[in-house]
Amino acid sequence: MTSYSKGAPVADELAGLAGLLYELGLLKRYRRTGWLVAGVRDPESIADHSFRAAVIASVIAVLEGADPERAAFMSLFHDTQETRTTDVPHLAKRYLTTTPNERVTEDQVRGLPEPVAAMLRGAVGEYEEKTTPEAVCARDADKLECLIQAVEYREQGHQNVQPWIDTSLAALQTPSAKRLADEALRTGSLTWLPRALNGGHAAH
Amino acid sequence: MTSYSKGAPVADELAGLAGLLYELGLLKRYRRTGWLVAGVRDPESIADHSFRAAVIASVIAVLEGADPERAAFMSLFHDTQETRTTDVPHLAKRYLTTTPNERVTEDQVRGLPEPVAAMLRGAVGEYEEKTTPEAVCARDADKLECLIQAVEYREQGHQNVQPWIDTSLAALQTPSAKRLADEALRTGSLTWLPRALNGGHAAH
Amino acid sequence: MTSYSKGAPVADELAGLAGLLYELGLLKRYRRTGWLVAGVRDPESIADHSFRAAVIASVIAVLEGADPERAAFMSLFHDTQETRTTDVPHLAKRYLTTTPNERVTEDQVRGLPEPVAAMLRGAVGEYEEKTTPEAVCARDADKLECLIQAVEYREQGHQNVQPWIDTSLAALQTPSAKRLADEALRTGSLTWLPRALNGGHAAH
Amino acid sequence: MTSYSKGAPVADELAGLAGLLYELGLLKRYRRTGWLVAGVRDPESIADHSFRAAVIASVIAVLEGADPERAAFMSLFHDTQETRTTDVPHLAKRYLTTTPNERVTEDQVRGLPEPVAAMLRGAVGEYEEKTTPEAVCARDADKLECLIQAVEYREQGHQNVQPWIDTSLAALQTPSAKRLADEALRTGSLTWLPRALNGGHAAH
Amino acid sequence: MTSYSKGAPVADELAGLAGLLYELGLLKRYRRTGWLVAGVRDPESIADHSFRAAVIASVIAVLEGADPERAAFMSLFHDTQETRTTDVPHLAKRYLTTTPNERVTEDQVRGLPEPVAAMLRGAVGEYEEKTTPEAVCARDADKLECLIQAVEYREQGHQNVQPWIDTSLAALQTPSAKRLADEALRTGSLTWLPRALNGGHAAH
Amino acid sequence: MTSYSKGAPVADELAGLAGLLYELGLLKRYRRTGWLVAGVRDPESIADHSFRAAVIASVIAVLEGADPERAAFMSLFHDTQETRTTDVPHLAKRYLTTTPNERVTEDQVRGLPEPVAAMLRGAVGEYEEKTTPEAVCARDADKLECLIQAVEYREQGHQNVQPWIDTSLAALQTPSAKRLADEALRTGSLTWLPRALNGGHAAH
Repeated sequence: MTSYSKGAPVADELAGLAGLLYELGLLKRYRRTGWLVAGVRDPESIADHSFRAAVIASVIAVLEGADPERAAFMSLFHDTQETRTTDVPHLAKRYLTTTPNERVTEDQVRGLPEPVAAMLRGAVGEYEEKTTPEAVCARDADKLECLIQAVEYREQGHQNVQPWIDTSLAALQTPSAKRLADEALRTGSLTWLPRALNGGHAAH
Repeated sequence: MTSYSKGAPVADELAGLAGLLYELGLLKRYRRTGWLVAGVRDPESIADHSFRAAVIASVIAVLEGADPERAAFMSLFHDTQETRTTDVPHLAKRYLTTTPNERVTEDQVRGLPEPVAAMLRGAVGEYEEKTTPEAVCARDADKLECLIQAVEYREQGHQNVQPWIDTSLAALQTPSAKRLADEALRTGSLTWLPRALNGGHAAH
Repeated sequence: MTSYSKGAPVADELAGLAGLLYELGLLKRYRRTGWLVAGVRDPESIADHSFRAAVIASVIAVLEGADPERAAFMSLFHDTQETRTTDVPHLAKRYLTTTPNERVTEDQVRGLPEPVAAMLRGAVGEYEEKTTPEAVCARDADKLECLIQAVEYREQGHQNVQPWIDTSLAALQTPSAKRLADEALRTGSLTWLPRALNGGHAAH
Repeated sequence: MTSYSKGAPVADELAGLAGLLYELGLLKRYRRTGWLVAGVRDPESIADHSFRAAVIASVIAVLEGADPERAAFMSLFHDTQETRTTDVPHLAKRYLTTTPNERVTEDQVRGLPEPVAAMLRGAVGEYEEKTTPEAVCARDADKLECLIQAVEYREQGHQNVQPWIDTSLAALQTPSAKRLADEALRTGSLTWLPRALNGGHAAH
Repeated sequence: MTSYSKGAPVADELAGLAGLLYELGLLKRYRRTGWLVAGVRDPESIADHSFRAAVIASVIAVLEGADPERAAFMSLFHDTQETRTTDVPHLAKRYLTTTPNERVTEDQVRGLPEPVAAMLRGAVGEYEEKTTPEAVCARDADKLECLIQAVEYREQGHQNVQPWIDTSLAALQTPSAKRLADEALRTGSLTWLPRALNGGHAAH
Repeated sequence: MTSYSKGAPVADELAGLAGLLYELGLLKRYRRTGWLVAGVRDPESIADHSFRAAVIASVIAVLEGADPERAAFMSLFHDTQETRTTDVPHLAKRYLTTTPNERVTEDQVRGLPEPVAAMLRGAVGEYEEKTTPEAVCARDADKLECLIQAVEYREQGHQNVQPWIDTSLAALQTPSAKRLADEALRTGSLTWLPRALNGGHAAH
């Protein structure tokens, strides 16, 4: 798919690539800041969130007739700038002027082999433009993942997550995401378990 | 891309989809068992691992001239069976007979809208067959991610991670993954940081 | 009580014994998997559970006129196979075929001095046969401990533990365990504290 | 073994028993204080320690020709007073005058059915008298468990645990505990794993 | 303000000072014991509590017309003895005879430069005497901080914190602390957030 | 000391004050971001840091002949803006334009009784101006606290903290802080313990 396969990365490019993989390890250590505000002691990582968001993006995309692999791919990278910006919570946005994600990504891909750089730039750029069906699905996935996590925290006892549910729900664009959100709110985080124990058939 | 877009999921299908998203939440709570063996008190989640593995898969795929989105997509789902099987550590495999991942996935997609089910079956099946270039890249990504995490844990003080490094390294198939592993071992988890502070240019 | 006291363990046996003690350290790091399913972020260890189960076994045994030391002793070892099998949750049993605990223990005691091996084999074998009064008490202790822990998690906010309470309660065999379960459900995890502050006398 | 089996506990006794089981749950939440001094962020619980100490007591007792069930039984209860006294670290003993453990236990068993109370009093009393072979084995188990945990923490990176190793080693009384300690120090926490992967046979 | 500025500390004094700063690091690792009793898995540190208590002391002092810096200063040191005594929970006070805090501090300042020693002795002595307005404010701050933390834990799901609220409330002495407690109970831990998002103006 | 004592706060002011105390609770939940970069899994809170920084500020101030209460008071508030801005790590400062701390504090005190507002404004303003001796001591305390914590993390195994030590050391201004830093680096985090066990006298 690219002409890149003609040659291996040179030494500096290899260092850049290894550095990128270590840099993204920060997303496994950084926590989602909003949950700390909501009172969660040791919340999910940004990587945790991004993982399920990517899966959700693919599901929404299928239901919406969009390309699920592309939607998932964008979701995978949608918060990767946070290794450099951290996860800035809602309130902090009144006090911090942020750099556009495309420019952060530009810094992150400096020195990488051009095909890798182009791949990341492309995914981030399309996500930030918010126009392709896949970008819309990926953005809905970000919100729906947050809503579902909020329900899970609520079932763990946390009483302050309602604003995260409301805000996420209100931001959804696609009919499929809205239906999934309603269903997630109507049921709960362990409704699937008796079905699974029953072999996937509806419980009687 | 599918004929599915003709209609929204029926009620049972919606319940199945919401259930799937909650089920995958388990991967945010389940820890990677091997690290507990190695002595890590509260290690990364399976979702943490899957997130970076998917990114790595895309990078390896680009370098190998394979399709990065497909490779990342397979990586995303490569451990999703572990909601039902848990992450069985090496030693436990002497004592537990496992079900093939394809069959676990078959149970997981029961009752889902067929396009979603087909998407998951397809990703898992290709990954388990280990034949397409993308599957090979995704499998290497799983190993390389483990190696990189082991280095990170070693830098945090853990002295028992060498077997995880050795095993992961020995399992790599693609030249690109091997080069990245060598580079990751040669440098370390924070080598990228001074470069980043310097705007992406090599430090002097 | 054994003819073993004639001689100290030989070098290989010593290595085996030290290895056993380190191996059981895994039970302090492995978490009880079911609670992760229920939504507990960082639940009790298997060792935590086994400790209280052993105490409970002795209490039930006294009440039932059985040998409390034997019941506690079996409880102590009732999950020791999980260093090799992990704590397989309910759902995973559909997908994993397990090895009988007696055979796992057989591997664990290989190379140990025979009196130690016999002691472990004996405790595990009797527990798994489920016939002696002490084995019945120890098995009830396992369930009652789970129920009590579920109540404690419920008081910490967790709303999904009811199935663990129901299942544990339904599995109890002895009248004493049933009475203790009813009382534990009727009261709560801190009812004892005002009494203790009052010197052990009932509060007025 | 007791005349108690003639009748079920009366209501107040039942409340006392359920209270005891909840009270001992504190040992699953209380951490071993010394490790906090040594720099461990979230160390093992008192229950974690008591579990492995009880197993170790049985092993030492077998090797010493003592009764392993009795030794384990005493170990199980050797720190149960800490629900009321907490785990007082070495330095704090200069500042806090403690109550003898037998008297704490006396308060803990007040209102319990007499056979249960007698069982606990007996175990604690014998442990505190330090004269029977089983008590000596149980006391050595407490120290050896601490030493082994210190080695585990050292392998996790902690550099301040040597005093805990030295003090534990110096306190051991029985030849078997001393041999096990030497072996534990000579090997390490994961030496058993390759042997276990090899089916219990010595690695080549 | 002191004649101390004439000379730098001698070597032993420097060692003492560095030792003091490391010793106080224990307050960042020690947890507040009462919350473990209440069921909180990994509660706040003593340093966490002392920080907000000091801020609260200054606020109460301003409202009461007392010296806020002096009140905050005493609060800062009000639990520093716990590096040596640990945080003894209510129940443990039946079993442990404690040393007066002034005498613990006396040990802590031994070998320090006299001006530093005098500063710590003065703050602790005044706090323990409970007579100056600033000491009364600082003592109220200790209680009010506990009440506010209890409300926060309650909103995180913990159902057993009411006794901590009741006891703290009943112990308050100053009108300002009582008013603040009533207001804290009337509102909740995130009422301030919409106001802050609205720029500090009351929400409409 | 203020004319404020003439009257109690009005309702809106009370709401503002309670809100402030809850808002500062965020500093107990927010972690110090730099340590996450360095690889610490669950690092100290901002409140943890602020507590010890305030103590250190008072010690430095005494040694420097400045007012220790004022220095400690400024330290207490030196990171309170981070409830609104989060703890922005070094790298993020390339991407986020921050608001001056004085302006953040201005928002935080809006609606508070004027004497409280003035107190906070005063402490923050003086700290940010960096000119008074007490402000210099408080700023050194911030750096020295970071250095000491880095040493503690290094002793816990973390191998990536050297840049935090170097940067902190280089930023120190006062002779006393420099001497304390040298001594802290020369000794280590538990050197004080044998002395304390020995009653405060130098060990032999």
